[in-house]
Amino acid sequence: MERELRPNEFRREEGALRILDQSRLPGEIVYKDLTTAEQVFRAIRNLEVRGAPAIGVAAAFGAYLGVREAAGDEGAQLREKLKEVCRYLAGARPTAVNLSWALERMERRLEQPDCAGASASRLADILLTEAEQILAEDEAQNQAIAQQGLSLLEPGMGLLTHCNAGPLATSRYGTALGPILLGQEQGYGFHVYADETRPLLQGARLTALELQRAGVDVTLCCDNMAASLMAAGRIQACLVGCDRVAANGDTANKIGTLGVAVLARHFGIPFYVLGPTTTVDLRCTDGSRIAIEQRPAEEVTCQWYSRPMAPQGVKVYNPAFDVTPAGLITAIVTEQGILRPPYEISLAQAKKKKEK
Amino acid sequence: MERELRPNEFRREEGALRILDQSRLPGEIVYKDLTTAEQVFRAIRNLEVRGAPAIGVAAAFGAYLGVREAAGDEGAQLREKLKEVCRYLAGARPTAVNLSWALERMERRLEQPDCAGASASRLADILLTEAEQILAEDEAQNQAIAQQGLSLLEPGMGLLTHCNAGPLATSRYGTALGPILLGQEQGYGFHVYADETRPLLQGARLTALELQRAGVDVTLCCDNMAASLMAAGRIQACLVGCDRVAANGDTANKIGTLGVAVLARHFGIPFYVLGPTTTVDLRCTDGSRIAIEQRPAEEVTCQWYSRPMAPQGVKVYNPAFDVTPAGLITAIVTEQGILRPPYEISLAQAKKKKEK
Repeated sequence: MERELRPNEFRREEGALRILDQSRLPGEIVYKDLTTAEQVFRAIRNLEVRGAPAIGVAAAFGAYLGVREAAGDEGAQLREKLKEVCRYLAGARPTAVNLSWALERMERRLEQPDCAGASASRLADILLTEAEQILAEDEAQNQAIAQQGLSLLEPGMGLLTHCNAGPLATSRYGTALGPILLGQEQGYGFHVYADETRPLLQGARLTALELQRAGVDVTLCCDNMAASLMAAGRIQACLVGCDRVAANGDTANKIGTLGVAVLARHFGIPFYVLGPTTTVDLRCTDGSRIAIEQRPAEEVTCQWYSRPMAPQGVKVYNPAFDVTPAGLITAIVTEQGILRPPYEISLAQAKKKKEK
Repeated sequence: MERELRPNEFRREEGALRILDQSRLPGEIVYKDLTTAEQVFRAIRNLEVRGAPAIGVAAAFGAYLGVREAAGDEGAQLREKLKEVCRYLAGARPTAVNLSWALERMERRLEQPDCAGASASRLADILLTEAEQILAEDEAQNQAIAQQGLSLLEPGMGLLTHCNAGPLATSRYGTALGPILLGQEQGYGFHVYADETRPLLQGARLTALELQRAGVDVTLCCDNMAASLMAAGRIQACLVGCDRVAANGDTANKIGTLGVAVLARHFGIPFYVLGPTTTVDLRCTDGSRIAIEQRPAEEVTCQWYSRPMAPQGVKVYNPAFDVTPAGLITAIVTEQGILRPPYEISLAQAKKKKEK
């Protein structure tokens, strides 16, 4: 098995955040050491780091990198600088919830009693430790999700996944790919089918790569081939990640997820959503409240291509996400356990447990 | 409205088969005049002419072009030459049923009483007329299918189609696109969504182009977006072509058709298959008897792309077709009428009617 691809890793000896440049995958595996907040900003904006949790982690380290030059100043100056750097980093991709969540957590850290009257140098150390803590928590959470998810699977199963919810999007294990990677370590011998996931091809570029490197038996397919695989009896479970889960269990995820869920229901195959409880938004009552971002036509008509692959000026429907109704979801797998319908109750309980 | 794109047109004044080079669409619209059987062979093999009916028509003209130099010889020599040319042309794409069907029909034409003792020059004329007849019949058949199909639709409907079953694949009107194009002429104001149809993008490259040029309100989408469109209430009917229909109604068509049919059933949307009765194979009892061709991995991993878009050596599932069970098909629209379940009976009746 080759070395696991990691989106973020802080190198204390170099004082640098080492990121994997995901915009160059799968062709080139290039790590970059970032030493300033500006470099982190650009890496996030240019999609070199992607996946909501991974962006949050990178931003947390970016906040530390942005204030460490101020470590020779007064504590108050460092606090001022931190505010400024966090505002700056939050603008890199304004829609990623984890980005603002991680930056707010970094700011809140300095409100703890142990920071009162501390030197700037001490505060910088505390911030670095906090960023490392965010990364470690993401990893621990993912490991718990992987274990919960694996308990739903049997050795030798055929599994279908859509988009990329692996270590590249998060931290170790990922979410939807967690049970697959953990199962691989334990000899489950899964046969995994990765939807290529048009238009941005995260399945082909990232999921197939991550699973191949982990030694998993992975087969790439176009999104429109999933029905054929299911009809042929080659899929025993579907595993997908999530971008936002409403209070009733309706789940927004990468465009195409809804189609997989409908097919799974038709063919009698369980459909599992995997994600941390931080993705559950109890203030959002149901999926109709989730705004769906429409993306540029060029992603469909010419991105990646050697020449435009559709007639000039053609209208394009290109939503980034779709919403899978709770009724099509067999279970939602979180670090707090496997949640079953009615989700109004199980999701609220899991969130409460998490806050304890 | 721009000039309709036609795959084949025989120009008597130039003595040439004018084809549209489909391998260069949608970027370039290039017509080529073919004057020898060898040129027709290469055009078919290189996918410059594609779509089963269009290939059949091109081959019929190719057979004429191959024998016309022999028009100064004896009739017997021309007959010998025709056999040879037909054998040669049949090898251009051995799997296309319409290719061998059209060539056999050309050979059989010379067995008619009016050919007995005719001069080579007269036989060549008869062959040209027969090829023109094949083209004209294809057009007439498609027009009948278009009219039948249109009777199922209402003005202003949102329609989803998959792959390309338009004039480019057949002759005038096409099959699945027939009701759309006829409806456009009659002011139906349809809103049409074209699945891009991975991996070969016939929907993006050909369907979107044909509909756009005909002035139809067409929107391109990735295959995995159909569920989102249906959930949003934007689709009132699905129209697809067919490559082979078994005696029980099970239908083989471009990969991804099955998925559309399952989604349509889930969302309560009618799903129509359109094609001539020549596509119905009564000797094939059901879909499980239809062999599905697996295509090269490169079509998914790098064809069209400016660089490989999947990790090297990854396994790929790439069937050219899938089979939609008869139970998911609302109606099969043929030139003999709209067929409804039980298809065992309605298909057999339509075939019998056709033979009369």
